Amino acid sequence: MTGVALLGCTGSIGQSALAVLDRHRDRFRVVALAAHRNAAELSAQCDRFAPEVAALVDPVAGNGLSANWLKGREGLIAAATHSDADVVLNAVVGAAGLDATLAALEAGKRLALANKESLVAGGPLVLDALKRGGGQLVPVDSEHSAILQCLRGAHNKEVRRLVLTASGGPFRNHSRAQLEHVTREDALRHPTWDMGAKITIDSATLANKALEVIEAHFLFGVDYDRIDVVVHPQSIIHSMVEFVDGSVLAQLGFPDMELPILYALTHPERILDSGTRSFDPVAAGSLTFEPVDHERFGAFRLGIEAGRTGGTAPAVYNAANEVAVAAFLAGDLPFAGIPEVIAAALEAHNPCGADSLAIVLAADAEAREHARHAIQQEKVRWQA
Amino acid sequence: MTGVALLGCTGSIGQSALAVLDRHRDRFRVVALAAHRNAAELSAQCDRFAPEVAALVDPVAGNGLSANWLKGREGLIAAATHSDADVVLNAVVGAAGLDATLAALEAGKRLALANKESLVAGGPLVLDALKRGGGQLVPVDSEHSAILQCLRGAHNKEVRRLVLTASGGPFRNHSRAQLEHVTREDALRHPTWDMGAKITIDSATLANKALEVIEAHFLFGVDYDRIDVVVHPQSIIHSMVEFVDGSVLAQLGFPDMELPILYALTHPERILDSGTRSFDPVAAGSLTFEPVDHERFGAFRLGIEAGRTGGTAPAVYNAANEVAVAAFLAGDLPFAGIPEVIAAALEAHNPCGADSLAIVLAADAEAREHARHAIQQEKVRWQA
Repeated sequence: MTGVALLGCTGSIGQSALAVLDRHRDRFRVVALAAHRNAAELSAQCDRFAPEVAALVDPVAGNGLSANWLKGREGLIAAATHSDADVVLNAVVGAAGLDATLAALEAGKRLALANKESLVAGGPLVLDALKRGGGQLVPVDSEHSAILQCLRGAHNKEVRRLVLTASGGPFRNHSRAQLEHVTREDALRHPTWDMGAKITIDSATLANKALEVIEAHFLFGVDYDRIDVVVHPQSIIHSMVEFVDGSVLAQLGFPDMELPILYALTHPERILDSGTRSFDPVAAGSLTFEPVDHERFGAFRLGIEAGRTGGTAPAVYNAANEVAVAAFLAGDLPFAGIPEVIAAALEAHNPCGADSLAIVLAADAEAREHARHAIQQEKVRWQA
Repeated sequence: MTGVALLGCTGSIGQSALAVLDRHRDRFRVVALAAHRNAAELSAQCDRFAPEVAALVDPVAGNGLSANWLKGREGLIAAATHSDADVVLNAVVGAAGLDATLAALEAGKRLALANKESLVAGGPLVLDALKRGGGQLVPVDSEHSAILQCLRGAHNKEVRRLVLTASGGPFRNHSRAQLEHVTREDALRHPTWDMGAKITIDSATLANKALEVIEAHFLFGVDYDRIDVVVHPQSIIHSMVEFVDGSVLAQLGFPDMELPILYALTHPERILDSGTRSFDPVAAGSLTFEPVDHERFGAFRLGIEAGRTGGTAPAVYNAANEVAVAAFLAGDLPFAGIPEVIAAALEAHNPCGADSLAIVLAADAEAREHARHAIQQEKVRWQA
């Protein structure tokens, strides 16, 4: 029986993970659940899965808080390092997941990582924690899961390049001028994937794909020159690997996060599961591919640049993006302002090596400050 | 240095194989070459690759025959079992490749098999020879190579089904009535692959895909119920594997036989090669999928039925198809007559276990006789 700790259990990935775990109770046991602030949902999940530990991170959400629950960030870390957890699935949203990522890896767990921001912000720290703890780091993102599956049995030296696919989001065919006028509702309407709000906006700006390129760089140890992105609007091919002999492997299927979640739990093996819709190529329709437009999707371009700069630059990129997306969702920033806010934060930052958690957190905090300032300026300009 | 014996060296696969071997002279050495009847080309290849043994199978083609060359089927077998050959690439066309397949496997070689007919006609015998010789059996067909690549690192019990792709051939959109009137030239014009005449006609009738389903059954030990075929006109996805967790892996690339030939030589490893066009999904255009029409493509349906019947039925199917295709190429049979000839041979045959080479060869000879008889009847009807 494999013990699983689930961080971010009430979000979109968390709920999909519980559906998977529920189908495989013969193999997995939920030992810890940690939620951000949805006490009612956490309570219902505790009734269904009877974890040994439950944690609610946001103390102001304590309405209905059980006396047995752990609270605050200490609760999150306790869940991430629970002695009965063999696997920790980190589905926290944003750089707020970094300390839990580091704690789980230092404790030698298998970390199933849905919280790509922690790897983007603190890549070198995460790899160092992985090495020290002797655990495993397995991606949950469908693109990285696809790459991991294509790499099964292969040696590093056999890989020529990784090709991540991107749906292109809801604004794939929008002109620059049209992008100026998109609304929150437009941006939340993803064409192929049903996901949480933050990642849905990141998919609309293509910031998500830049975060994924950085994630792939750290996860698979591949240079940026050997990571390409191609727009594939149908989201059927989840990503590809080109090998040194010119052969390409791809992983495909109808979009469903339950599949990569299960694979992250069972990797490198696979187990019988009938929870997801069986793939039918005829029903999939036409599969098409387009280049990414770096001009229209400035958040993508900036993310790739930050990745190549390295050090604290990806942490700054990620933090500024988080603040900009929150402002957009709150109606405080137009869609086209998101890349401008990120650019302002990156310009204001002087990158250095991401050598310690303190350095990364300081870069993150500074970037958030710069981003908030830029949003104020944008707001003035926008409302003028 | 790996010694390679190449059987069928002057055909389409043979020439592609020599292009691959020429690029990798640091790793591979051509120790034996065997051709059917093209003495001039064999002579030129001997000058380029200086094999230790050369053989010309057809003795009437001895015009320009070198005194040093081996002759007849003994020459072919000598090449297939040459002591310096680590790998034998069998690219003979038709069931005529069966004895060389058996001889190479019994000698413990790695057999890179492009001659699918030998596996179709004598599947149980081939697997038995493989077991006794302790060698390896690796496919060269692009579809089976794709499946082998997708299976790397996987356990048998993780495989749910194999999905072979088929271009659909030049008559994919032809009605039954239109199929009555297609010419030799129409049938030889394959939309995506440049291949030898026999396999090109087999692709137009979809008999080739039925042969490949039977080949996959023996190669991968998968039941017919778990082998599907889907028409994919662009021939970019070369085949797919669906696993028990619902995940699908596919191998893709622009059509080029040099890639699966190289992989058959290096499997399970890959080596650096820049001889084939690098895959570009944007340049690949739309990828589409359609079901196979079993009604219009009778040769496909009959082949799957013969595979399911098993025993000597696949040998009969294959032999009758070979005779029918030769008659079509000679102008002695209309295109629509090919499945009728196959059906006649299968109806006249009483299947039994393919327990010995003598039984298989007798079934093959009987089927050829029935097929020739059916062609005479068709010819009378056709010319009436």
